[in-house]
Amino acid sequence: MTRWCITVEYDGSGFVGWQRQPTGRSVQATLEDALHKLLGERPHVAGSGRTDAGVHAEGQVAAFTTGVTRSARSIRDGLNAHLPQDVACVAAVAVDDGFDPRRDQKRKTYRYTWMDRPSRSPLRGGRVWHLGKARLDDARMHAAVQALVGTHRFDSFRAAGCAAKHTLRTLEGAAVRRRGDLVSLDLVGTGFLRHMVRIVAGTLTDVGTGREGVDHLAHVLAARDRAAAGRTAPPQGLTLVSVVYDAPWSGPGQGDEDGAAGTYSSSSS
Amino acid sequence: MTRWCITVEYDGSGFVGWQRQPTGRSVQATLEDALHKLLGERPHVAGSGRTDAGVHAEGQVAAFTTGVTRSARSIRDGLNAHLPQDVACVAAVAVDDGFDPRRDQKRKTYRYTWMDRPSRSPLRGGRVWHLGKARLDDARMHAAVQALVGTHRFDSFRAAGCAAKHTLRTLEGAAVRRRGDLVSLDLVGTGFLRHMVRIVAGTLTDVGTGREGVDHLAHVLAARDRAAAGRTAPPQGLTLVSVVYDAPWSGPGQGDEDGAAGTYSSSSS
Repeated sequence: MTRWCITVEYDGSGFVGWQRQPTGRSVQATLEDALHKLLGERPHVAGSGRTDAGVHAEGQVAAFTTGVTRSARSIRDGLNAHLPQDVACVAAVAVDDGFDPRRDQKRKTYRYTWMDRPSRSPLRGGRVWHLGKARLDDARMHAAVQALVGTHRFDSFRAAGCAAKHTLRTLEGAAVRRRGDLVSLDLVGTGFLRHMVRIVAGTLTDVGTGREGVDHLAHVLAARDRAAAGRTAPPQGLTLVSVVYDAPWSGPGQGDEDGAAGTYSSSSS
Repeated sequence: MTRWCITVEYDGSGFVGWQRQPTGRSVQATLEDALHKLLGERPHVAGSGRTDAGVHAEGQVAAFTTGVTRSARSIRDGLNAHLPQDVACVAAVAVDDGFDPRRDQKRKTYRYTWMDRPSRSPLRGGRVWHLGKARLDDARMHAAVQALVGTHRFDSFRAAGCAAKHTLRTLEGAAVRRRGDLVSLDLVGTGFLRHMVRIVAGTLTDVGTGREGVDHLAHVLAARDRAAAGRTAPPQGLTLVSVVYDAPWSGPGQGDEDGAAGTYSSSSS
C-alpha cells in the first residue's frame, strides 16, 4: 500500500465545492472518479480542508492510499489524462502511511481578488469580484486588515453554520496590494473558520470604499459578533493558493524518482 | 453624427477572430449586433486590425459613427449590457470624424505566453501555450529575440496567405520574462504581418528548449524565407495588449464628460 499526497489546481466555477455532496459535481468525487479509471480501485481522497462552491484552488493538497504500484509521474499524468479540464494534478509524492493533509498542515494561504473598474472583464471575469463603479483604497485596506494579524477569537468572521468548536485562530500575515485595476488580499494563517476569508474580504470592502473607517476591522474583531462584520464576499474572488506542511512532510522530492513530485506547497507567485 | 472610439477586451476562445466571416461568431459582428440593440441602427465597426481565431485582446481599439446622441458612459455601459460575457467595452471616447483606428495607430503591443510545467492548468489553460514536459530558458530567448528589434524585412515571419504588399516593419522592442511557470514575450511595433507574433513565438520556442542556438532568430530573419522559421505557435497564447495612437488621438479624456472615457491605449500591467 502506498499513500500519495497530491497538489490539485481547480477552477471552482463548475463545482459545488471540494467536498462530495448528494448532488452536483464536487472536486473530491471528481478526483475519486479519475483514480477509479486510473487504478481500477476507488480510494477515498482526503483534502486539507473544504473549499466552497465557486472557490478556486492553485494548491489544494489531498491524499489517498492505494495498493496499485505506480510512479509519482504516472499518478500525476494518469490523473490528468482522466480528469476534466477544470481540475488538474500539479504534483504527486509518496508519503508516510500516517500523513493526514488536514491534521498535519502548518499553514494555508488564501487570496481574495477584487476588480474595481467600470466595465466587466471577459479575461478575468470568473476569478474576481467585480465591484462596478466603486473604487477601492488599497492602502487603507492594507492598514485596516493588520488588526486581524495575531491570535484572536474570530467569532465575527465565521459563517452562521460553522461547526468549529472554538474560534481561536492565528493569522500570521495579511497584505492588500493593487496591480492595475486588481486589488488582492493575501491571508496566511494556521487555520480558518468557515467563510472567514470571504467575511474579512466583505468587511474590508466597506473600508476600501470609504464607507467605514480604517479602525473598522479592529472594532468588528472585538465585537465577536457576526452581525458586526460586513457581507460575505462572493466565492469567485477567492483562491486557495497553497497549503504548507512541516517536516517530515515538507521536504521536496520524496518519492520523486522521475521528477514528477513537487513540494507540498505551491508557490504563491 | 458622432464618431466613437472604443477599447475592447475579449476572450478569443469562442470567436472565429476579429473580422466578420460567412459563418461563426466574430468580435466585429458581435459588437455590431450589440450596437444595433443599443442604438436601433447598425453602424459599421472598424478595428485597428484583425486578430485570428482564438487570439485574445485586452485593448483592441475600434471605431464607429452613429447619428444617435449618447454620452461616453452610456455607450460603454450600454454596450456591456448587450454584449455576451466573452467581450466587453472597456472605454468609449468621442473622436474626430476622420479617425481611422487602423491608419492612425502609432504602435501595438502583443504578448505571447507559454506555460512550461508538466501538468496543464485549469486556471490558465485557455490563455497560454502549455508545453508539457519541455522547459524554456527565458534568458536565452530574451537574448535571441533582440535580433529582431529594428526595421527589417520580416518575410520569414509571415503566414503563407499574408496579403501585405511589402514586408518592411519596425519592431521597437522585444522582451522575454519569466514569472513562475509562465514565460511571456512582449513585442512592441509599428506594424505586424499576418501570424508574425505567433511565428516569432514558435521559432523562439526552439531556442528556449535548446534545440536551436541563441543566434537562430538572426539567421531566420536574414534568410527571408518562411521555411527557415519554426512552427506557428497556437493562438490561445496570444493577446493583443494595447494599441497606441498619436496626438490628436492620444489625449486622455476627450468627450469624457462623465468619466467613462479612457485614453486610446490600455495599460499593459
